[in-house]
Amino acid sequence: MLGGGADALHHTARLLIACPDRSGIVAAVTGFLYNHGANITTLHEYSTDPTGGRFFMRVEFTMPDLDLSGAAIKDAFGRVLAERYQMQWHLSFARHHKRTVILASKQDHALLELLWRHKQGELHADIRAVISNHTDCEAAVREMGIAFHHVPSKRGDKATAEARILELLGDDTELVVLARYMQILSEDFVRRYPSRIINIHHSFLPAFVGARPYHQAHDRGVKLIGATAHYVTAELDAGPIIEQDVTRVSHKHGATDLVRLGRSIEREVLARAVTWHLEDRVLVHGNKTVVFN
Amino acid sequence: MLGGGADALHHTARLLIACPDRSGIVAAVTGFLYNHGANITTLHEYSTDPTGGRFFMRVEFTMPDLDLSGAAIKDAFGRVLAERYQMQWHLSFARHHKRTVILASKQDHALLELLWRHKQGELHADIRAVISNHTDCEAAVREMGIAFHHVPSKRGDKATAEARILELLGDDTELVVLARYMQILSEDFVRRYPSRIINIHHSFLPAFVGARPYHQAHDRGVKLIGATAHYVTAELDAGPIIEQDVTRVSHKHGATDLVRLGRSIEREVLARAVTWHLEDRVLVHGNKTVVFN
Amino acid sequence: MLGGGADALHHTARLLIACPDRSGIVAAVTGFLYNHGANITTLHEYSTDPTGGRFFMRVEFTMPDLDLSGAAIKDAFGRVLAERYQMQWHLSFARHHKRTVILASKQDHALLELLWRHKQGELHADIRAVISNHTDCEAAVREMGIAFHHVPSKRGDKATAEARILELLGDDTELVVLARYMQILSEDFVRRYPSRIINIHHSFLPAFVGARPYHQAHDRGVKLIGATAHYVTAELDAGPIIEQDVTRVSHKHGATDLVRLGRSIEREVLARAVTWHLEDRVLVHGNKTVVFN
Amino acid sequence: MLGGGADALHHTARLLIACPDRSGIVAAVTGFLYNHGANITTLHEYSTDPTGGRFFMRVEFTMPDLDLSGAAIKDAFGRVLAERYQMQWHLSFARHHKRTVILASKQDHALLELLWRHKQGELHADIRAVISNHTDCEAAVREMGIAFHHVPSKRGDKATAEARILELLGDDTELVVLARYMQILSEDFVRRYPSRIINIHHSFLPAFVGARPYHQAHDRGVKLIGATAHYVTAELDAGPIIEQDVTRVSHKHGATDLVRLGRSIEREVLARAVTWHLEDRVLVHGNKTVVFN
Repeated sequence: MLGGGADALHHTARLLIACPDRSGIVAAVTGFLYNHGANITTLHEYSTDPTGGRFFMRVEFTMPDLDLSGAAIKDAFGRVLAERYQMQWHLSFARHHKRTVILASKQDHALLELLWRHKQGELHADIRAVISNHTDCEAAVREMGIAFHHVPSKRGDKATAEARILELLGDDTELVVLARYMQILSEDFVRRYPSRIINIHHSFLPAFVGARPYHQAHDRGVKLIGATAHYVTAELDAGPIIEQDVTRVSHKHGATDLVRLGRSIEREVLARAVTWHLEDRVLVHGNKTVVFN
Repeated sequence: MLGGGADALHHTARLLIACPDRSGIVAAVTGFLYNHGANITTLHEYSTDPTGGRFFMRVEFTMPDLDLSGAAIKDAFGRVLAERYQMQWHLSFARHHKRTVILASKQDHALLELLWRHKQGELHADIRAVISNHTDCEAAVREMGIAFHHVPSKRGDKATAEARILELLGDDTELVVLARYMQILSEDFVRRYPSRIINIHHSFLPAFVGARPYHQAHDRGVKLIGATAHYVTAELDAGPIIEQDVTRVSHKHGATDLVRLGRSIEREVLARAVTWHLEDRVLVHGNKTVVFN
Repeated sequence: MLGGGADALHHTARLLIACPDRSGIVAAVTGFLYNHGANITTLHEYSTDPTGGRFFMRVEFTMPDLDLSGAAIKDAFGRVLAERYQMQWHLSFARHHKRTVILASKQDHALLELLWRHKQGELHADIRAVISNHTDCEAAVREMGIAFHHVPSKRGDKATAEARILELLGDDTELVVLARYMQILSEDFVRRYPSRIINIHHSFLPAFVGARPYHQAHDRGVKLIGATAHYVTAELDAGPIIEQDVTRVSHKHGATDLVRLGRSIEREVLARAVTWHLEDRVLVHGNKTVVFN
Repeated sequence: MLGGGADALHHTARLLIACPDRSGIVAAVTGFLYNHGANITTLHEYSTDPTGGRFFMRVEFTMPDLDLSGAAIKDAFGRVLAERYQMQWHLSFARHHKRTVILASKQDHALLELLWRHKQGELHADIRAVISNHTDCEAAVREMGIAFHHVPSKRGDKATAEARILELLGDDTELVVLARYMQILSEDFVRRYPSRIINIHHSFLPAFVGARPYHQAHDRGVKLIGATAHYVTAELDAGPIIEQDVTRVSHKHGATDLVRLGRSIEREVLARAVTWHLEDRVLVHGNKTVVFN
């Protein structure tokens, strides 16, 4: 069963692994967990190629005394298994909600969707703040009890704004979500958060990269419009895709209609991608993602 | 009700109109038809802009004595209305099935889908022949009672093959369908059939133009793959889009899986586009389509 | 183009017609409008059967001096056309936003979706109030500047609550939306608002009528769950369906997951149905709807 | 990567397990396989409830010398693990194509879809025969090189026809597919093939059980129509659902249009369900399915 109660989450941990594929990894990992008293509740694995490919795995498990034994397991796993199999790995605890900051601009639909789902308990994030280069959504954000910071963008002086944003992010922000944030982040900024900045682009990438994608879509006369949630990399709208979806349009819809219809898709796609990231379901492999859900 | 029996089709005509938008067109056209004894069964209209835009209209109507009066109506419409409103227009009769030739290559899925729907009575086409640069689908085509011509493609000598194809098309072919035909037609060829060549491209255009789109899609790591039916123009994969659809894929699917999953979408999208064209539901406006369905 | 600016709406009217089908109706109606100086911007029609069936029509038109001439047109249309063709008809003005009251219970997702779209300018309603038998959503409603009334439901005394709700609705409420309102309205209540109460049911009707449809769906092991917006009639969950949609689920999803995933579909389906009703796009025919969009 | 070449399939086996959930099952099974020289290529698991629920697992693995060691593994697994964990289990070899018989009636779309996919290499079945109570599809079946048997249905004498069908199925038929077979099989017949008869029902079950579901759907005025592939049980249209899908319809579509539009969905849904069954991806749990794909 997905979800589960607060109590279950308290005892739940997730182990993410990526390593060269070879025989015996699953047996080694599950044996290790069993020997440490863990009960596996979900296991996903994927290999790009059983002979010489790369292997990915996500194990969710419960332990009655995770508080005490979590650190011990982490230590033992690193010593015993990770080295032998050349693993990149990450152990996280479901009770830890990732420290998250949302960047937005004038439009509030993607932002409010996240905040609303957070309030519903659907989004296991510790939302520290919303930062915007406009003040349009300030009242709505504050009303939900979340800190709001206005960091204006000055044309020709991106550096000042980014410095201020970095200051607000501090040292411990784990996830940055661009909820229709209309500024392009510098390469330097992006490199500080590898696979930890999620953007929603309002087109079915790789179609319609860049500005005004709905207008581009309208000009091309497509019969479906889409939205794409992806990790941000130095190249614009070219990072690993986490999720996409589309909705049907027709000749009757002007560019303004596409903007309106697209909002529903953007909200849904971004919310799914952020949810999966927060639940440690997304692994990056080159410029692609492995999504275990 | 869409469809309707063979008898109904016998008395059914369709009037397609495109003209500068101005007040009174619908009243003038429907009044004209009423005065000539026609009974309108379906009416679609669309204006790009009520003030100064372009107006499109499709009227389907029945007349008990269409055999006799069809020509008279055509003549009267041209004299009375078309000139006054600067109309491009076309009157067609539902009982006339457009003379259609299908071009294919090795793969048979898109071709067989059309032939199968034709046999079911879903596709109101007079399929004159299938032409292929391979012989793989010859037996299946002949078994369905349809003429098959093998016109091999020689590298570096496109002209000979095209000349042979044009010869087979003759003077009266009304629709050419490229059912995964893997040769690029020359500009000269394409210009002979404006808005009368339908191609199925195996991607969600404008993403992944050109060769091996499923492999391009796999490399990019998209989460949905698609297919696009469009009219062929001189520029590759850039003509007016008639229909598109998508299906969900994941990291688990290799390029070969995308090819397999994509076949279902290609078949469906091409069949829809051809059906709509045959029922005079598609009007071209610049590089876009107006689809009345 | 759908939508259009505020100015365009000011001069826009919509004529809805239902009558026995016969020859000449479209010509008569469009001729009438043309002669009164109206410019038709959209026309939809549908006939259940051209011979002896019922004919439905929606015409959207603009007039520069609609303020002055609207009443005159209404009067003339009634005298000249409506009687001749035995029409049920309705003329409405786009600038008039229907007086709407939303009923909700504990859950706020469907309610907030409507309020949020209203704030975005997507929903052309005059939302007079939200009434709930709980106070959970009171703060959120008031924060958006909309009146909130708490009308508790007492087991065994539905009459008192309904009387209070009717009092709040007053004489001029044009649309009642049940945004996951968990009380069953009495037949008497329902009869006062024929085709003017829209409910969202959290299943793909007619599957899973009644209580706890997600649990019913989970028990049956369906692979898609859905939501249905319909007009409320005396028979539970059996009124004319306006819109439906579905989302994919699997064995992995427990009933709680279906509830969570279903919320997105419920929000979208209800918002679409209410939008179409407000734009006079929905006509009721027996226990079905004709939706012109 | 799904699929894979013929050579890979030769060395591939699949282990299906269902048992009471408890700690250590995954470790035990994967350890067992590793110790026997197997390389796991895909692993799916699911538990209805980690404490006291039922656990399901599918492991696909390769072994270089599966020919020799397959039987040994089977034996050892039964002795060592199956008993300890009270497992229902099944080991199958990918190179073994299940002996399959398809039953059809007049309509050929679902049948031809399966045969076409089989020819494409998409369906790993050993199709032994097609049996029909009509002869409409005889020529098409024979042309594809598959045996055809005509077993007419006589009203009031179901027993004779069923006896003949059982005779044709013989002792070793592993899968029976009802590709729009319009006869209801007796309880006795159904009991002989538990979870081994797949039917395609032309509605979104549980809506519109029984006869003429498209007409039922049209009468109810639904906005989506669907199809459902399910295992056949003694109760009509009530067996475990394997797959479902839907397509959008509107008031414009008569019952005949629904029949036509529904064919595409029926074909796709049945083909998916049969593919998954043939790849041992479907486990039955009570009246539901667990589909590992």
